[in-house]
Amino acid sequence: MATLFHVPLSPFCRKVRLSLAEKRIECQLVEERYWEKDADFLRRNPAGKVPVLKIDGKTMAESAPICEWLEEAYPEPSLMPRGTDDRYEVRRLVSWFDDKFHNEVTANLLYERVNKKITGQGYPESRNVKTGAQKIKFHLDYMTFLLDRRRWLAGDRMTLADFAAAAHLSSLDYISDVDWNRSDVVKDWYAKIKSRPAFRSILADQVPGFPPPAHYADLDF
Amino acid sequence: MATLFHVPLSPFCRKVRLSLAEKRIECQLVEERYWEKDADFLRRNPAGKVPVLKIDGKTMAESAPICEWLEEAYPEPSLMPRGTDDRYEVRRLVSWFDDKFHNEVTANLLYERVNKKITGQGYPESRNVKTGAQKIKFHLDYMTFLLDRRRWLAGDRMTLADFAAAAHLSSLDYISDVDWNRSDVVKDWYAKIKSRPAFRSILADQVPGFPPPAHYADLDF
Repeated sequence: MATLFHVPLSPFCRKVRLSLAEKRIECQLVEERYWEKDADFLRRNPAGKVPVLKIDGKTMAESAPICEWLEEAYPEPSLMPRGTDDRYEVRRLVSWFDDKFHNEVTANLLYERVNKKITGQGYPESRNVKTGAQKIKFHLDYMTFLLDRRRWLAGDRMTLADFAAAAHLSSLDYISDVDWNRSDVVKDWYAKIKSRPAFRSILADQVPGFPPPAHYADLDF
Repeated sequence: MATLFHVPLSPFCRKVRLSLAEKRIECQLVEERYWEKDADFLRRNPAGKVPVLKIDGKTMAESAPICEWLEEAYPEPSLMPRGTDDRYEVRRLVSWFDDKFHNEVTANLLYERVNKKITGQGYPESRNVKTGAQKIKFHLDYMTFLLDRRRWLAGDRMTLADFAAAAHLSSLDYISDVDWNRSDVVKDWYAKIKSRPAFRSILADQVPGFPPPAHYADLDF
């Protein structure tokens, strides 16, 4: 069976968890306190980050290459479209969320409020939290712009782009940092993705010291 | 003809330039002062970053998705191996350089010494420069570890992983921040890649106010 070394609220780990679950690959989850730089863990991944996936005798790190590998080694059900231009659009949006959204929103909200406390780095910097709360509005509006034109973020089929976005938003929703009233189309999109079987393990996550709000696991939020 | 909006010392732009040149795709280079947030440029790429590539009627941003698109749309000569596991290794190393190496080395050396001045953000922070100078040693040693076992970084053929690494190292070499005496195998690897026709335009780069050292364009450095 595959093993994923992860932390529950990491959007990068959640993207891999969603891909694995959607492809019905059985996987054991092992929580990894990566900031403690355990020697065994560093041997598995010299970059010292999660996710790390052990599967089919291989050990892999870096969420984007892992997801591309999963798509190639386990092509069905597919999370990438066929056409070259459509595949570019999926990868562009995965980068958008894992790079731009991550730096502007996730780092300013989730890492300030949760990761700092868990890893013993002190209190949230209120200036950063304020920046994150401003920036998420711009991103929700950009998602609205896309979803007004498409059924899913990258086109008419659900893809890895939707999982990348849902991974970030679900982690932020765990700390009540997503204003679902801002956009009906984004809320509808999240309701669709949240109700997939692949999402169940994510909705069951519990981080000690940070109980999720009631709406977090509610499919009718 | 294709057009690439770029800045000369950006490793992300250089990776795309190397891919284009290796695939013999003719491309006009347009320097983009992206930090001035020109309205036309933001229309081309709402993320406000370079590289932006106009090709075949499309406008694309984000260097990793651009390079995957180029590989799929212009497969020959190929910069990705065939096997699923080999492709993972290329993508892992591209992420390694564009994420870890970038944050630990390029940001601390190139951005401190050059980008800050060009974009009017003041003087280099000596603490960061010191960190970058320390960290590059670890990365050169990691490259030595790989190149002791393989002809190229990801295996026996030159791939996008070599271009990602060479893009960062060549930008740092422009400001004399690479100690080529640290590792013979890394120096030999760079000499091989530097002598490729695809590298010519990069060796001809000139940034006003920052003349390159004599060895920068010298194939026998």
